[in-house]
Amino acid sequence: MSGDSLIVPGRRAVSFALQHNPSRVREILASGRAYDELTKENLSCSLKEVDRDELDRVVDSDVSHGGVVARVLPPVPTQSLEDLARQAHDAKGPVVVLDGVTDARNLGAIMRTALWFGAPALVTVKRNTAPLTPAGIKASAGAACVLPILRVTNLARALDAFKDQDLWIYAADASETAEPMCRAPKNTPAVLVLGDEGQGVRPNVLKRADVCLQIEGESRPGFDSLNVGVSAGVLMAWFYGN
Amino acid sequence: MSGDSLIVPGRRAVSFALQHNPSRVREILASGRAYDELTKENLSCSLKEVDRDELDRVVDSDVSHGGVVARVLPPVPTQSLEDLARQAHDAKGPVVVLDGVTDARNLGAIMRTALWFGAPALVTVKRNTAPLTPAGIKASAGAACVLPILRVTNLARALDAFKDQDLWIYAADASETAEPMCRAPKNTPAVLVLGDEGQGVRPNVLKRADVCLQIEGESRPGFDSLNVGVSAGVLMAWFYGN
Repeated sequence: MSGDSLIVPGRRAVSFALQHNPSRVREILASGRAYDELTKENLSCSLKEVDRDELDRVVDSDVSHGGVVARVLPPVPTQSLEDLARQAHDAKGPVVVLDGVTDARNLGAIMRTALWFGAPALVTVKRNTAPLTPAGIKASAGAACVLPILRVTNLARALDAFKDQDLWIYAADASETAEPMCRAPKNTPAVLVLGDEGQGVRPNVLKRADVCLQIEGESRPGFDSLNVGVSAGVLMAWFYGN
Repeated sequence: MSGDSLIVPGRRAVSFALQHNPSRVREILASGRAYDELTKENLSCSLKEVDRDELDRVVDSDVSHGGVVARVLPPVPTQSLEDLARQAHDAKGPVVVLDGVTDARNLGAIMRTALWFGAPALVTVKRNTAPLTPAGIKASAGAACVLPILRVTNLARALDAFKDQDLWIYAADASETAEPMCRAPKNTPAVLVLGDEGQGVRPNVLKRADVCLQIEGESRPGFDSLNVGVSAGVLMAWFYGN
């Protein structure tokens, strides 16, 4: 189990992959009762019985897998930024752009939220983005097996390409000068940029934004923002029309 | 470092505790450069130099502490449900009630969000709630040092007490019969009940709710809800008036 495959731990995420992207599930490793149950299913991929220790090794010790791990090919990525921009015009949620998210569980949680709120894809930077570890894939509740990621080298240039395709760029920004979220229109094709947990969106990326948005709350010294996964959820819920 | 103190890892969370609840910071352990920096500050608590291994042991190996760990007394809990209900009438956010949240990081993230959105306190069940581990306290960004938790034995009875004090009870509920979130009024004194990651709010608790709320999204088989921390954020942002 290696290479570019996603290592998908846990019954919930594996069952999600089998339901929603079965042709890309390459192999399932299972132990004990989980294996017995899977033998009764009509699987189109290989199923192998292994002992629990091997599963522990495959996923890293701190991720619970409940006796099941799958190796899944990542969703087919969108061909180009232009294709993605076209999809964004028909999607219910914004294209979600992550300017460096360094925690794999945050990355996974954002994928789950993005799929829930109809994002067509995630765009990440090749550097400064957490790899999609088994812990991250588990946090995605399987969304990582369906939602494509487009990895770009130069985020500023990618945003310029989206602007050329008539998409508005919104960036999450904790500074006081940012507009309150409620000023942004709901249900419009958009790109939503989120920054990393410590620094937020970098200045050269932020200046590409048409509008900077803040989530109003009880800010106080040393406490000026929400967790990036929570911010992502609040903003995406808004764009979706909730 | 033991007993009922909170073990607070990392500069950010420790600095938050020192700024916002200094009288309850009992002791700081630090190593290397972090220790040197702290000696320059005007601390009212004891500061002890230790080696990194000791800090690793205190916080558990998988939590990064950046060379600083504090032992902090928990915020003074609200005396009774009646007192808390009175506070809720003046607060900007709802009382947040957790019907069993079994992941410490989710618990911490919810505390951070609750403090951001002006919740007066968290109410948890004595059984079925994750302990406030160092990882959870870190995920709270220090909020665990300020936001009180009221731990109750019987949640259904607690909700009845809130109803007697004229608070409306809203419960997060992924089922189709729940009302869309946008039907709930913003900026009203309220109690918001959230369930655990797997099962949601238990039926005997759910039936106490005046209104069940759902966050609309692209539900599909095996994918019917958001992460509880994200749901909490979306709902609290709504009640806060975002």
